[in-house]
Amino acid sequence: MKKFLNDPNNFVKEMIEGIYLANSDKLKWVPEYNILYRSDLPKDKVAIMQGSGSGHEPAHIMCVGKGFLDAACPGNVFAAPPMDYVYECTKLLANERGVLHLINNYQGDRMSWDMAKELAEADGIKVGVVIIDDDVSVKNSTYTVGRRGVAGNFFVIKAVGAAAENGVDLDALVALGEKVNGVTRSMGVALTSCTPPAKGSPIFEIGDDEMEVGVGIHGEPGRRREKIKSAKEIVEEVFTAIYEDLPFAGGDRVAVMVNGLGGTPISELYLLYGEAAKKCSEKGLVIAKN
Amino acid sequence: MKKFLNDPNNFVKEMIEGIYLANSDKLKWVPEYNILYRSDLPKDKVAIMQGSGSGHEPAHIMCVGKGFLDAACPGNVFAAPPMDYVYECTKLLANERGVLHLINNYQGDRMSWDMAKELAEADGIKVGVVIIDDDVSVKNSTYTVGRRGVAGNFFVIKAVGAAAENGVDLDALVALGEKVNGVTRSMGVALTSCTPPAKGSPIFEIGDDEMEVGVGIHGEPGRRREKIKSAKEIVEEVFTAIYEDLPFAGGDRVAVMVNGLGGTPISELYLLYGEAAKKCSEKGLVIAKN
Repeated sequence: MKKFLNDPNNFVKEMIEGIYLANSDKLKWVPEYNILYRSDLPKDKVAIMQGSGSGHEPAHIMCVGKGFLDAACPGNVFAAPPMDYVYECTKLLANERGVLHLINNYQGDRMSWDMAKELAEADGIKVGVVIIDDDVSVKNSTYTVGRRGVAGNFFVIKAVGAAAENGVDLDALVALGEKVNGVTRSMGVALTSCTPPAKGSPIFEIGDDEMEVGVGIHGEPGRRREKIKSAKEIVEEVFTAIYEDLPFAGGDRVAVMVNGLGGTPISELYLLYGEAAKKCSEKGLVIAKN
Repeated sequence: MKKFLNDPNNFVKEMIEGIYLANSDKLKWVPEYNILYRSDLPKDKVAIMQGSGSGHEPAHIMCVGKGFLDAACPGNVFAAPPMDYVYECTKLLANERGVLHLINNYQGDRMSWDMAKELAEADGIKVGVVIIDDDVSVKNSTYTVGRRGVAGNFFVIKAVGAAAENGVDLDALVALGEKVNGVTRSMGVALTSCTPPAKGSPIFEIGDDEMEVGVGIHGEPGRRREKIKSAKEIVEEVFTAIYEDLPFAGGDRVAVMVNGLGGTPISELYLLYGEAAKKCSEKGLVIAKN
């Protein structure tokens, strides 16, 4: 897999610099700790931050702004942010109303954020935590005890981000984040592997006619590998797994997100959305816009 | 190249259906002619439409809305819209203030839109035309007499779209569109070929260590093929070709767009933006935000 890059070891730093330069009127950048934060950082609301491994963009690093995250502090590609990134970012955001940590459920992330939280609390900073684990594919995974946290985090970010702007306090934001996570479900399918820049080769091999159903976002195995199916059949399987897991029921109002974590053309994502919308309609789910 | 699709021959139709279903509160869809149009179509402003081959999304089909296009009518993947798509779309939009056709400069598109314009004018519809030809890579190309029209069309769409909302008349919109096109320059680089769904195989072969500099968006040859360079070197070449072509000069206010036509991860695009922003700074160009 070819890439547009300079030194592969600087890939994440240079990506963040690009985001910063494209938004330097709205963001500030702390290169030592991969921190991007709002230049209009409010001090009278709970501050919200996230940051997991890079390589899943837009992920968190492109979600910093009013009504979303106040800051993000990603680690390297597929690596949790080191504890000091999280600790420094927490200190930067700290105010009397507290700081909310949003954490996608991977062991590496849990460890970094747990330790950073302890350090911050020792400094007298009030910290709340929401763990996100939306992926229904597998119960445990290579890097996870319990379910993985994947794109469901966008719904949590949006909900707590909006509520924080409206003055909601830390405890209530934690409850809201847990509520949103509790009704969010996702599942992924991969047609190809990805190639981290510093590795330069695919992280797993997959046949030209195969797909991995329920793949993890770092290439972790999913439910099974099989021959590629049509978009309609793929959506049927993913939709059913999600629908039955909560379970959802006819008449429910739902929000639907189809995403490619950066690698799938938007044309294909809309085609998949069309199939998902038809499945919702068939089951009596109402796709809510606002 | 694997894809999420059903019958490859229905790829474009199903993609458009997905866009429609995701925005059915704002758009209407005419499947026979691949037309998406604003459901709140104003009758008291000039109507604006575009539509070229599909496969370059977001392209035009994802730019329909207030302040942008009133409608789009794309053809199949890498195929101009048939004349009747353009004609039917023009009739649908027609009002007393006229209809503006935006056309990216490819021979197939020129022919369809020319004929459709004649038919519409015979019906008494006032039609204005802006031809977009922003790509500095080559003078003529496989499917083009003169320069190609590529992503520069977004700047034209935005400018005439906003002006039309403010009541500007057809002649002035044509002049504005030509002015914006006249100061817009672009150039592309490809690391890999693309694979149209119905073809199922790459449209050109390229070595694992090669890139095509100045590639066309349907795989047309560019200036030359060479070994892959760093992102910094690639931006240096593209920037210099664009900068010297107008020519731009220190102190100019510019808008910068880096795009991957659907195939390049957003992380790499931001890394490239960072390099482009530094080149602008070095040359004294001011990146204007508003």
